[in-house]
Amino acid sequence: MSEIDFNITIVGLGLIGGSFAMALKELNIKNLWAVDIDTNVIKTAEDMRIIDKGYTDPETPLQNSDIVIICLYPNLTLEFIKENMDSFKSGAIITDTAGIKERLIKEVDLVLRKDIEFIGGHPMAGREYKGFEFASKEIFKGANYIITPTNKNSRGNIEKIELLIRRIGFKRIIKITPQKHDEIIAYTSQLPHIMATALINSDEECDTNSFVGGSFKDATRVARINCDLWTELLINNGENVLAQIESFEKRLGDIKRAIIDNERDALKALFEKGSLKREELI
Amino acid sequence: MSEIDFNITIVGLGLIGGSFAMALKELNIKNLWAVDIDTNVIKTAEDMRIIDKGYTDPETPLQNSDIVIICLYPNLTLEFIKENMDSFKSGAIITDTAGIKERLIKEVDLVLRKDIEFIGGHPMAGREYKGFEFASKEIFKGANYIITPTNKNSRGNIEKIELLIRRIGFKRIIKITPQKHDEIIAYTSQLPHIMATALINSDEECDTNSFVGGSFKDATRVARINCDLWTELLINNGENVLAQIESFEKRLGDIKRAIIDNERDALKALFEKGSLKREELI
Repeated sequence: MSEIDFNITIVGLGLIGGSFAMALKELNIKNLWAVDIDTNVIKTAEDMRIIDKGYTDPETPLQNSDIVIICLYPNLTLEFIKENMDSFKSGAIITDTAGIKERLIKEVDLVLRKDIEFIGGHPMAGREYKGFEFASKEIFKGANYIITPTNKNSRGNIEKIELLIRRIGFKRIIKITPQKHDEIIAYTSQLPHIMATALINSDEECDTNSFVGGSFKDATRVARINCDLWTELLINNGENVLAQIESFEKRLGDIKRAIIDNERDALKALFEKGSLKREELI
Repeated sequence: MSEIDFNITIVGLGLIGGSFAMALKELNIKNLWAVDIDTNVIKTAEDMRIIDKGYTDPETPLQNSDIVIICLYPNLTLEFIKENMDSFKSGAIITDTAGIKERLIKEVDLVLRKDIEFIGGHPMAGREYKGFEFASKEIFKGANYIITPTNKNSRGNIEKIELLIRRIGFKRIIKITPQKHDEIIAYTSQLPHIMATALINSDEECDTNSFVGGSFKDATRVARINCDLWTELLINNGENVLAQIESFEKRLGDIKRAIIDNERDALKALFEKGSLKREELI
């Protein structure tokens, strides 16, 4: 594979940042640097040779990076950009990986220098565990990646980010507005986590372990989450999330009504609709 | 492995009945017969040598079977027992695999001859596909099995059924009353299917495929179901299912309220509770 003639810095070597480092390292990036507050993680990443060098102070790598990939929680992403605005290289592209976009992009926009661009990104990949020790480039393979460019982004820079995303294993890149991203993600990502949590928290007195089959295990898998991150994501996307919960409550109400009214045909039709939709899901 | 000195008939060579045949065949059962309305399935099972002989007319195998395992939908299970009450061998044990127990066992009790026993059973194993072609003894490996004996069952007969269940790969056998079974299963099995269906039916206008990650896929896996069977299970266990839906709605309400009130700590506490419960699930 040909060399990619950029210097890249990853900010935050957690699950996502670590996975980026592992995946990017295989592309022969000109220089791949990382910033983290944890010197142990930096040392491990250097020893594994998945980064060329790690820093706790971002100044040097930012001054020399063509692309900066921020892999922090949403609020910290904004803070990092604000605090280091003077350090970015002229012409740099900053991208992020936060699971919510509208408010973040608006706030970045208020502070962004005119000679750099911010392109919002959201890898639809993750694990139920957090931290560098669970990082793996495999989580990106075949997954979807959403980017939310705005009219402030140049075509050339969008293409550079798209190239990188494809080269590290993502299958499909979807471009939508930050607003639309937050609406849709409230349904496809945030609602499943809420359902899993509400479901597992509904147990009352029984020894659940003895009575579960695969259905309960799968339906609750993502109740095992990074609680700080998900609290932040849901609070910051509250309006969209509440709309999705209400839409879900209506569909749950359909099933409830069919059971109360003993309407076999109506209940079966709801299952058939869902079954077909699930079958169509790749 | 030593021979098991019983004649056994499996009624219904679908996903569960076929899996039973495959698993039992390895135990050197004295004779393993099957009853099905589909002659093609019978021929396939005979050709595969997972049964000794198959029948469309149950009379002969029932007259000679010490154990009869009924692998039909709940309503058909009852119908089959009623219609063939005169054919069972004296001293036989009938067991079933239906996902609901209280009403079924009461109704069986009304028609059961005094010289035979019925022991309710529920293998906590399945797949999102139905039919013999998806049968596999692997689905039983390590799974839970619930039996719901009553005071009409003798210890010796319960032990015979338990022995069989363990020998075909189930890890844990739980004995509870039919009433308790239906209450608990409404939560651990029926509610996850309802959630998955309501979740996947909540999509409004988006191309869901492009925006889903693993969380949505897992949370909706069991929306792909046997719609006839699940309609019957839920209608027949309506009261317990509605109680569980209401309990779930309360827990969903907790999350909603925390988001509406912008209560980060309360929301995080709910996630932490769920995360810990999920971690404890084996």
